[in-house]
Amino acid sequence: MTRYPDKASQDVAALHALLDQIHLAHVGLVADDFPLVIPTGIARDGGRVLVHGSTGSKWMRALADGADACVSVTSLDAVVVARSAFESSFQYRSAVVFGRFTPLADQDKVAALEILVEALVPGRSAEVRPSTARELGATLVLAMPLEQWSLRLSREWPDDEDSDVAGPSWAGVVPVRTIHGQPRAAPDLHDGIDVPPSVQALIADSPGE
Amino acid sequence: MTRYPDKASQDVAALHALLDQIHLAHVGLVADDFPLVIPTGIARDGGRVLVHGSTGSKWMRALADGADACVSVTSLDAVVVARSAFESSFQYRSAVVFGRFTPLADQDKVAALEILVEALVPGRSAEVRPSTARELGATLVLAMPLEQWSLRLSREWPDDEDSDVAGPSWAGVVPVRTIHGQPRAAPDLHDGIDVPPSVQALIADSPGE
Repeated sequence: MTRYPDKASQDVAALHALLDQIHLAHVGLVADDFPLVIPTGIARDGGRVLVHGSTGSKWMRALADGADACVSVTSLDAVVVARSAFESSFQYRSAVVFGRFTPLADQDKVAALEILVEALVPGRSAEVRPSTARELGATLVLAMPLEQWSLRLSREWPDDEDSDVAGPSWAGVVPVRTIHGQPRAAPDLHDGIDVPPSVQALIADSPGE
Repeated sequence: MTRYPDKASQDVAALHALLDQIHLAHVGLVADDFPLVIPTGIARDGGRVLVHGSTGSKWMRALADGADACVSVTSLDAVVVARSAFESSFQYRSAVVFGRFTPLADQDKVAALEILVEALVPGRSAEVRPSTARELGATLVLAMPLEQWSLRLSREWPDDEDSDVAGPSWAGVVPVRTIHGQPRAAPDLHDGIDVPPSVQALIADSPGE
């Protein structure tokens, strides 16, 4: 929905970097001829992306059955504050992957779920017990290859007209980023259990609030 | 894609609060029988949501022509660090609005674009010149009523099994939030133009990096 088709990129490394940073995806599918968009966690596993969910989810089952799907992952990197409303925009990175998901076989789920956990909370998988057979049986893990995709990278400064640049208005960019706040222990946590290394690492980006 | 269908909510105030906080939407539509998801800025205007884009955008034109669409807006509020991988998840709020967009008439665009600018950078619309007729003519502004929507609110603590609660593993939540960094002036900014009040307000959430 941009005016700049030249933002399209073929940069596989940039695609991977985006998918390794942003773990919230919006998955599109067609349900009874209507479009549907579902937010879900995502992780890259080499040349494919992984999602997971309950076997009880209607949409997970539709995806597992091979419905055409697209996976949109977006990072808002900065607000572009231009000298006019018209030129104001965002610096962003947006990937859309097209294709179909394939369900993973039971014996492949353990490794795939570890990749998902590690993407969301690095180091956590080694701190928790292994999943039980019942848990694995209740979980669908789906993979889509990174074969058909489009990537848009917008990192421009404001592109104001000369007459606006000559005027009194400020212009620049304001970076946007996501941080983690201080962890809060569950109400049922027993005394003497410290915040684990994985959570300590997660909040290392937190400015000590 | 969750195991908890009871997270569904009919809370209109919570829907409005989400749409007033998160201004990145993922819009789904069906293009040649395939699902497509487009990220775009969004703002709520009373009982409808507004998006805008170029008249040159194929997808904006498809939406303006009344294609069935759905608008997904998601806020990741916290990481739920459970005592097992299976119970680990997110606190989130997710709205999906279904319907069709209607293009705004020229005389309604000015007010609608002001609402969009104010949603993204509050106070900015009063700091920039009015849009020109050419700019307005190149811009499509579309509205979708908030009539058919679903809202999911997940704010739970970890829901671990008794045997896990009795074990040695930590559990809790780690808040996630978005902040703004220090503004960077455009390379072509003239000397003596200060960072405006709108940008100062935007970075008020910034922890002084």
